[in-house]
Amino acid sequence: MAIAKLRDSSCSVARSLSVLGERWTLLIVREALSGTTRFEAFRENLGVAADVLSERLNTLVECGVMRREAYQEAGRRTQYQYSLTETGLELHVVVGALQQWGDQNLPRPEGPSVVRQSQKSSSPVRVAFVDEAGREVSEDDVVIVDTDAQAPLASV
Amino acid sequence: MAIAKLRDSSCSVARSLSVLGERWTLLIVREALSGTTRFEAFRENLGVAADVLSERLNTLVECGVMRREAYQEAGRRTQYQYSLTETGLELHVVVGALQQWGDQNLPRPEGPSVVRQSQKSSSPVRVAFVDEAGREVSEDDVVIVDTDAQAPLASV
Repeated sequence: MAIAKLRDSSCSVARSLSVLGERWTLLIVREALSGTTRFEAFRENLGVAADVLSERLNTLVECGVMRREAYQEAGRRTQYQYSLTETGLELHVVVGALQQWGDQNLPRPEGPSVVRQSQKSSSPVRVAFVDEAGREVSEDDVVIVDTDAQAPLASV
Repeated sequence: MAIAKLRDSSCSVARSLSVLGERWTLLIVREALSGTTRFEAFRENLGVAADVLSERLNTLVECGVMRREAYQEAGRRTQYQYSLTETGLELHVVVGALQQWGDQNLPRPEGPSVVRQSQKSSSPVRVAFVDEAGREVSEDDVVIVDTDAQAPLASV
């Protein structure tokens, strides 16, 4: 099944991966979350081939995850910069969850290369399940419910 | 760059994707979180070719995300079932974040096919950033800090 076919899946994880599942795409989003905007900076920081990067950025722009803006420096040709839209910024929690899992389960000896923290309080933040009031819910207490059947599929 | 090369990256997002970034892998994890255990059930529910499924399950077992157990029904040959290890169960928040993003940004007309809720309170749960005390931190307030430089890379 081609990745584009996932777009019509009834499963929202599959639909998300139809946009994000290609190699490099989530790493491009991670770069953008860290403030990278210029094509050349994405290319250098990721070590990705220019044609692949160009294709991935085009897909992200088409899907409304990033926007492209032209800019021009004196005496040079027009260039483009890329930034996350509101839809793209909502991926912060996806990238944060992947980072957290990697730091916990595939750690590097010298520790994490970046951490996330609250700007206001400078205290570290992590990704977790929360209830409607924004209070953490333990992973053990979270069940997946099939909205057609309205019965828990599994307790995980 | 091959996916295996990402394993040595200093970035934990890249390291996570070295295990999870192949096509189908996160959908297999989603199935397992919903209670699927048997090879044939994964194959049927996902519509994935048996050889690809077999390869992905092997990788997940090698990486400690899933465990394989033999079982035998009377008069039949030995078969295998797969379940998530503790490391694998920690991916619930990654899959939950992808699902949430898909439901918000690529919705299907009839609404989400599954929702997550607290088993204790039956109230819906979502994925968010939390502080050390388990209280939600707004995405606008989360900054990425380079642990070498100890300075915020970007406010997102």
